[in-house]
Amino acid sequence: MADPRIAVIGGTGAVGTVALRLLRKRGYDDVRVFASARSAGRIIEGLTVEEATPDALAAGDIDVALFSVGTSASRELVPHAVRGGAVAIDKSSAYRLVDGVPLVVPEVNGDRALEHDGIVANPNCCTIPLTCALKPLHEAAGLGRVRVSTYQAVSGAGAQRMDALRREPVDEHNVGVDWSWEGDETEEESKIRAEAQKIMELPDLPISANTVRVPVLVGHAESVWIETEEPLSAAQAEEILRSAPGVQVVDTPTPRDAAQTDQVLVGRIREDRAAERNGLVLFLACDNLVKGAALNAIQIAELILARALV
Amino acid sequence: MADPRIAVIGGTGAVGTVALRLLRKRGYDDVRVFASARSAGRIIEGLTVEEATPDALAAGDIDVALFSVGTSASRELVPHAVRGGAVAIDKSSAYRLVDGVPLVVPEVNGDRALEHDGIVANPNCCTIPLTCALKPLHEAAGLGRVRVSTYQAVSGAGAQRMDALRREPVDEHNVGVDWSWEGDETEEESKIRAEAQKIMELPDLPISANTVRVPVLVGHAESVWIETEEPLSAAQAEEILRSAPGVQVVDTPTPRDAAQTDQVLVGRIREDRAAERNGLVLFLACDNLVKGAALNAIQIAELILARALV
Repeated sequence: MADPRIAVIGGTGAVGTVALRLLRKRGYDDVRVFASARSAGRIIEGLTVEEATPDALAAGDIDVALFSVGTSASRELVPHAVRGGAVAIDKSSAYRLVDGVPLVVPEVNGDRALEHDGIVANPNCCTIPLTCALKPLHEAAGLGRVRVSTYQAVSGAGAQRMDALRREPVDEHNVGVDWSWEGDETEEESKIRAEAQKIMELPDLPISANTVRVPVLVGHAESVWIETEEPLSAAQAEEILRSAPGVQVVDTPTPRDAAQTDQVLVGRIREDRAAERNGLVLFLACDNLVKGAALNAIQIAELILARALV
Repeated sequence: MADPRIAVIGGTGAVGTVALRLLRKRGYDDVRVFASARSAGRIIEGLTVEEATPDALAAGDIDVALFSVGTSASRELVPHAVRGGAVAIDKSSAYRLVDGVPLVVPEVNGDRALEHDGIVANPNCCTIPLTCALKPLHEAAGLGRVRVSTYQAVSGAGAQRMDALRREPVDEHNVGVDWSWEGDETEEESKIRAEAQKIMELPDLPISANTVRVPVLVGHAESVWIETEEPLSAAQAEEILRSAPGVQVVDTPTPRDAAQTDQVLVGRIREDRAAERNGLVLFLACDNLVKGAALNAIQIAELILARALV
């Protein structure tokens, strides 16, 4: 196979620009960038932005299409890229919970990426680091219950929100909710539960999330309480996480330390003094634009491209 | 009794200045302000700062001494104020867990304030709003377990940290830990547990806290998971909290909305989908300098002054 022909759709957004940077760093040469008509003609990472029209995406000259656009744009455009023969790796929530569409974190369920029928979904930026930390603990002791309180950077809501935070007087910095509500929880909270259940293939795992936006530009953090089926000490959990793929154990994970790294930082691992049995609590941080989004999508692409080479 | 003679010690700090403002707003006229020698002579809220020497505090002309100084300064100075006949209400952690010293949140255990022997301790700024929300739920259904993840404003670490955040480029804003460690948890985490147990008189209540500093100037927030002994629906919990003293139920509590109010905002009350039974999750926010500190101390003073009038 020749150099893979990669397209980044939504290449001018917060995740798209990181994807272009990572692709360049990883040595991909045949990269094109698409965005809305408004951005067509702009130069980004040395590439001229093309308009993401159905015809352009269906032209048959793309091997992997990395979509970092909104959910409705993904619903509209992804099928055209697939029709043109590309494998679409979609960052939006459009396809994540669709039966038959693999929802993939390479370190957790990478094999599923190869079962695609043209589309692989990239999970929510909180779900990815969470499952990286949970999966090895599940394999060791079986997950019983999970509670998670998030500290999410504004870049998770897009580049415009980053600009808004940069302009905001510090006195107005706040902690809050900017997701839609689905019944008694936020859309983000139900996403984290449903996606983590699908990725780990634990459809009945009880998960309760409390999602919160904080005035940080880049890097999500999460407080996580876990109950396991079998006893697992904090020391054992730390040992397991030290050899877990994609995870780096540190004393105190912070978004700033995680920023621009490929790793999920996990630390503050200790016994949960409130648990009846087998409880652990930990804190994690991850660059929501890198491992939480663009890097995870590229890793999925690489799994698929590696298979295509065989 | 004549107008109570009130002294604010540490009146130039983040909490002390709020105490002076609240005292003025509540109509107290006989207020003096003390601070370190460095600040003596400064004018604050129209008052000339006096040096907080042992002799000045022991002179016998203070009825209530509100201490908002560090733990070691409290250990040194509080006994002198008590020796001079004042009731000392101390914001530091010096006396909070000392046997015989009441640790008081007026809405939760106000009666205990009257049992003082010269000193009443004012709890940690996270413990105060937490117990305001927990106590009425405990009375209704019995608390079984509590897990809390905090979002703490930098003003909880003092006025200098507020200035530092104001100067910090937004790109450096972070989420992290700035407390000392006590074994496998932060000092703040063990304070929240021990203080909530003491205030609610539930010495064995299992509490697990994950304390986190966020780049917000004023206002602490907390994600709280609760398990109750008896069943308690989210609707019942909300009803109970609507009539709880010091609590205001809102859809989405935020630090900004709580700032400069006297209330603990509680919302996002829902069933905990991860609990085996009787689980609730909620979110709260509170002005850490007002109800979380200065107001709570003044409310304690008022309980004691009201008793002195009888």
